[in-house]
Amino acid sequence: MTSATLEAWRAQVHTTLASHIDELPAGRLRDAMAYAVLGGGKRLRPLLCLAACVDAGGEHEKALIPACAVELIHCYSLAHDDLPCMDDDDERRGQPSLHKAFDEATALLAGDALQSLAFELLANSTKLAPSQRVRMLGELGEAGGVAGMAGGQMLDLRSHAAEDANLDYLTRTHAMKTGALFRASLRFGLLSSGGEMTLLDAFCTSFALAFQAADDLRDCLGSRAHLGKPTGSDARSGTLTWPRLLGIDAGKAACIEHREACFEQLRQLEFEATHLAEITHLALDIEDLR
Amino acid sequence: MTSATLEAWRAQVHTTLASHIDELPAGRLRDAMAYAVLGGGKRLRPLLCLAACVDAGGEHEKALIPACAVELIHCYSLAHDDLPCMDDDDERRGQPSLHKAFDEATALLAGDALQSLAFELLANSTKLAPSQRVRMLGELGEAGGVAGMAGGQMLDLRSHAAEDANLDYLTRTHAMKTGALFRASLRFGLLSSGGEMTLLDAFCTSFALAFQAADDLRDCLGSRAHLGKPTGSDARSGTLTWPRLLGIDAGKAACIEHREACFEQLRQLEFEATHLAEITHLALDIEDLR
Repeated sequence: MTSATLEAWRAQVHTTLASHIDELPAGRLRDAMAYAVLGGGKRLRPLLCLAACVDAGGEHEKALIPACAVELIHCYSLAHDDLPCMDDDDERRGQPSLHKAFDEATALLAGDALQSLAFELLANSTKLAPSQRVRMLGELGEAGGVAGMAGGQMLDLRSHAAEDANLDYLTRTHAMKTGALFRASLRFGLLSSGGEMTLLDAFCTSFALAFQAADDLRDCLGSRAHLGKPTGSDARSGTLTWPRLLGIDAGKAACIEHREACFEQLRQLEFEATHLAEITHLALDIEDLR
Repeated sequence: MTSATLEAWRAQVHTTLASHIDELPAGRLRDAMAYAVLGGGKRLRPLLCLAACVDAGGEHEKALIPACAVELIHCYSLAHDDLPCMDDDDERRGQPSLHKAFDEATALLAGDALQSLAFELLANSTKLAPSQRVRMLGELGEAGGVAGMAGGQMLDLRSHAAEDANLDYLTRTHAMKTGALFRASLRFGLLSSGGEMTLLDAFCTSFALAFQAADDLRDCLGSRAHLGKPTGSDARSGTLTWPRLLGIDAGKAACIEHREACFEQLRQLEFEATHLAEITHLALDIEDLR
């Protein structure tokens, strides 16, 4: 399913992240950051970034640091989301989560430092003009903040108590929590290519909704091997999810519908989105849910 | 002690921070951010930034957003440092700390979002050229990360167990935990003025050491009114401090010595550091410790 190009990009993202972490002062904090970033992961956001750049006619090298910056934001958010005061997850990608492998204070600080590093790397990315960088840096701050990822996680945490916990609430939560960073990934790819984006916002929302619905369904259906973490945690926490809101069958139907919308939106682009389509197939492989 | 100029700057920093937080999507997360940022504080870092800009011949308006960005980083760090898994402080500035006023998850997310907001504001600060902004953004990332504030907090947390917990360890901890952000404040002021800085690094370290020694001594001597939080927490946590390492008298002597060094370093600057000297007097007012 994975093409050689995507494999090569994934390896390059890993090497780039590893080399920048390796340059940091040695010690427990750096070790924790390395554990959080280099222990696996699909690198979906960096791949979306590189694919958008290349599909739009750019050189993928230009998008490499922006891609890594988004991944660092994603990794910091996982470290913080797993903490006991948040989702309280002891496992991540089949391994102890960061605070179990180290301790809570270290996990908190490592997350903080990963966020700092994301902005530092992007600010110092000399392959891009300063004007491009400040634009991306502003957008990365927004995507990670109250109007994006952090705000979405807040909605998610409050969903069990939210009186207005309906489909609109769920959609908004996932568009912010997951969609904002997908959107930043794609935008950074297009901006790195020198192009502009007008049509991809709808794609990002559909992508985030299909992605999150599939994740919720797997948690509910108990496909632990696929998730790399214990299942059933959503039900225990009372978090609002697609299957909880719609039931399993309608949840699956919604997932499939949003996935189809992704491909439709890619077909409407003015360029041939070969790599983006491939990543969409890969990320939204829901054969096990049909 | 406080001049009208400093009061006016402080008010302007407050108004600027308030207006940017007010623009964020309404809700619990924004409320928590406002609580963390607008509930008081000496605004020492913004004042250092504005003073450096003006003393070096610049217009303070240019340094306003960089000053606010540093303050947001400082405020996020306080929110995270107060959490139970870190310093576990229930009070801050005479009020319940953020996680007591809200809850731990909200405090964690609000801290995360404040860090994002700091970079977002600085990236979008149109009073500065993009090349100035990317330079500051890179330095802000570094100052907040492993080589700076987060790394210093890690050293601090581990100091009770550190085998090499000597004066060098303590100095390094405070130079990173506190000094790095002071340094960023001053550098951003000078960069905003269009100038370069060569001589202020030593000032920042001395300033951070005197500042932290005074804070440690007050915690130890029980000057609760001055600190705005319960005292004796360092002794309970076993953290390495100036009085613990050197004793009260030698701790005071070290504080005074570093304070004197600050003024000496200011006298060596090529410009008249009127405002910086005033802030140093204000921030390092240690009459109660003599």
